[in-house]
Formats: sequence, C-alpha cells, structure tokens
Amino acid sequence: MSELTIWTLDWVPEGPRGFVRDLRLRWACEEAGLPYKVQTIPFDGRETNHLARQPFGQVPFLSDGELQLFESGACLMHIAQQSDKLMPGDAIGQAHTLQWVFAALNSIEMVSVSWWFLTISGHSDNELTGWMGKRLAQLECVLSEREWLAGDRFTAADLLMADVLRIPQVRAVSNRPASEAYVVRLTSRPAFKKAYADQMAHFELADKERA
Amino acid sequence: MSELTIWTLDWVPEGPRGFVRDLRLRWACEEAGLPYKVQTIPFDGRETNHLARQPFGQVPFLSDGELQLFESGACLMHIAQQSDKLMPGDAIGQAHTLQWVFAALNSIEMVSVSWWFLTISGHSDNELTGWMGKRLAQLECVLSEREWLAGDRFTAADLLMADVLRIPQVRAVSNRPASEAYVVRLTSRPAFKKAYADQMAHFELADKERA
Ligand SMILES: N[C@@H](CCC(=O)N[C@@H](CS)C(=O)NCC(=O)O)C(=O)O
Ligand SMILES: N[C@@H](CCC(=O)N[C@@H](CS)C(=O)NCC(=O)O)C(=O)O
Repeated sequence: MSELTIWTLDWVPEGPRGFVRDLRLRWACEEAGLPYKVQTIPFDGRETNHLARQPFGQVPFLSDGELQLFESGACLMHIAQQSDKLMPGDAIGQAHTLQWVFAALNSIEMVSVSWWFLTISGHSDNELTGWMGKRLAQLECVLSEREWLAGDRFTAADLLMADVLRIPQVRAVSNRPASEAYVVRLTSRPAFKKAYADQMAHFELADKERA
Repeated sequence: MSELTIWTLDWVPEGPRGFVRDLRLRWACEEAGLPYKVQTIPFDGRETNHLARQPFGQVPFLSDGELQLFESGACLMHIAQQSDKLMPGDAIGQAHTLQWVFAALNSIEMVSVSWWFLTISGHSDNELTGWMGKRLAQLECVLSEREWLAGDRFTAADLLMADVLRIPQVRAVSNRPASEAYVVRLTSRPAFKKAYADQMAHFELADKERA
C-alpha cells in the first residue's frame, strides 16, 4: 500500500502558477486514482533549505513510505509503476513508455526550457531557435501519425510530453496542428483539470494566508 | 537471453569522436559483461533516413530481440535491468538509480548541452552561464559528500553523470575538485577505457574506408 506525498512550494508568484511540476505528479495520481497528500516547503530560502531532499533546491519531490525521490521524471515513473492506467503491464510497453518519458525530458525539454529561458530574458530570437524548431517539427511528424506516444494508448509519457508542450511560448512556435490537438486532447482530461485546479487553489490559498 | 545491438553512425567528424552517445551503451555493456554488437546508419542523410527508429534523426538506439529503443537514458536503463553490476536489486536502490539518471539528463545536461551549444557557437559568456554554474556547484556539494550517486555503490547513474560531466568545456567551468575527481575516477574504469577505445577505433576505421 502506497502512502504518496507530493512536495511542492508553499507559494509562488503568479507567473509559474499552473506550471509548477508538482502538477505532473498530481495529474498522474488523479489518472491512476491513487490517494496522495500534498506538503510544502517554504518559497523563501528554497534554494538552501531542503538540499537533502532535492539537491538542486527545487520541487517537486515525492515520498512514499521510506522512499524519498526527486526529479519529476523519476517520481512519475514511480507512480506509473503502481497503476496500469499509466503504463502497460508488458515489458515492451513499459520500455517504450520510459523511452518517451526520456524523449520528453532530454530531446524536447532540454532545448525548450533553455530556449524559453533565453526568450523570457528578452532574447526571443536566440541561438536555440533553430534547434528548438527542428525538434518540434520532428515531434509534429510523430503526432501526425498516431494518437499516443507509447503502446497505442494513454501513458505517463503522454502526460509528461503534453506538460512539456503546453508552455504558452512553446505552443506558439510555428503551426503544428497535430501537436496542438494533442495538447488540447491531453489537457482536456478530467485528471489534468483536477490537478491544475488544485494547484491554482493551493497557491491562491497561500496568497490569503500571506495577506 | 539478450541480443543487444547498439546502433551508431558509420562516421563522424573528429570533434565528436569519443563523445558520441553510443559510448554510454558500450560502457554499460562492458561494465556488465554483456555481449553486444555494434551496427551503423549512414552519417549522410542521418536526419531523415532512420526516423522510424529514432524520430529525432539521432543516435544511439538499441535493439534487443524484438525490442527497439531510442534515448540513451532509456537504453541505459534497459541494459541496467539486465545486470546487478549496473543497478542494485532492491526497489529503493533502483528508484534512486533512475532518479540520478534523470538528474544527469534533466538537471545537469538540460543546461550543460544548451550552454555548450551557445559556447561553441561563439557566445562563451552567454545567458545560460549563471544557471549552469549554479547546477554544477550544487552537484559539487553532492559529490564532496559521497563517492557514488545512488545506493552507495557504482551504478548506471554514475556512468551517465560522468559522461555528462566529462565534456571538456563543462569540465573547465570553475574549480570543482570533487566533480573533477569523480570524472577521473569514473573514466579510469577499464570498461570506460574499452568503450572509448572501441568508439575511436570504429571511426578511424571509417576514415580508412572512406579514403
Ligand atoms: N529536473 C527537475 C526540474 C524541477 C524544476 O524545474 N522545478 C521548478 C518548479 S517547476 C523549481 O523548483 N523552481 C524553483 C527554483 O528553481 O528555485 C524536475 O523535473 O523535477
Ligand atoms: N536525447 C538523445 C540525444 C542523442 C544525441 O544527441 N545524439 C547525437 C550524437 S551524441 C547525434 O545523433 N547527433 C547527430 C545529429 O543530431 O544529427 C539521447 O540521449 O539519446
């Protein structure tokens, strides 16, 4: 029996609300129907006050009984192992799910987050734009040919890829109808909506408590 | 019984030799003592000629019987599941190995590859320098306190982190004695040396065949 606790920040400014990566874990638990608690660490001092649990001073991290985990990808796979709603039961289906989880994080997000960082720092036409456009075009080809990334069904890899792609600045890059339809399809799932609403409510409550 | 085939390019220019990521998989197989074959796809046309096997037109990818996999992280985990030389047998040790594999790819490499790309494009003092320095300093703290990332022993996560850190431009960033000692320690392992020498020989042979 699992005892999942998702750790996030107690408060963040408006900008990142709805995009803090605890959402990936909330969403996965909602899809799987797994019970979970949410606990927080303080936003102020976040870079130094919990390095034993997340050595880069970030969130999310997860606890499950005596297991403590960081990296949203690792936490997501831990949750996925607990439910066939998130991953097929066969070895090939599981390997392909993991493959696309890595693709989301190390082929797409590797360039999209760095590109986004340069973009919001005021360099919207930056040196990563070509690389970024190429990866998004390659993914558009994949998504034009199939509905789901792995195992012909919804998996944790779709959840993660959609979360990577739904960043507004990324979504606005070129005309990619299959990718856009994919993001719309994934973010219309009740489990995403619940996770999103819960994260928004969590930070709104924090505003009130701060006031 | 596994039938591992590591796919790489038939030829690359001198610059990337010794750093093409098939090395991660060769190294893992050498550590584990698992037999493997190496096969190639042509460098020319690489971006379009094998998209069914690697949708981003890259290498490495792996085949094992009927399983086909891309993403070096996913291939590495597939190999690690076949040998206790690469990963502990218990669930917590395995989760921590996977966690640090994700950390290598999504906390360190996410910024280091983008930073490296800007650096070699002639922007050595770029907007990612601060972020990059911060992550490397945080990792230096971790490596100052322990020898291995996961499970108190060598794992696939150390192999991958060392491969991420050994890029010369990354290695030259600030004075980080624990990280440098870690890279030296890992790349002194006979399995790394064998994998490295084999990759170099593979591309040298290709030079001769081209000539
Ligand atoms: N690779 C990490 C990245 C985590 C990450 O970027 N966390 C952000 C929130 S989404 C954070 O904690 N930002 C606050 C900070 O860096 O100070 C993961 O996927 O878990
Ligand atoms: N996220 C991928 C990245 C693979 C990658 O960067 N491959 C390089 C070689 S190390 C490549 O194929 N470069 C040739 C190209 O992109 O055209 C992985 O880890 O497998």
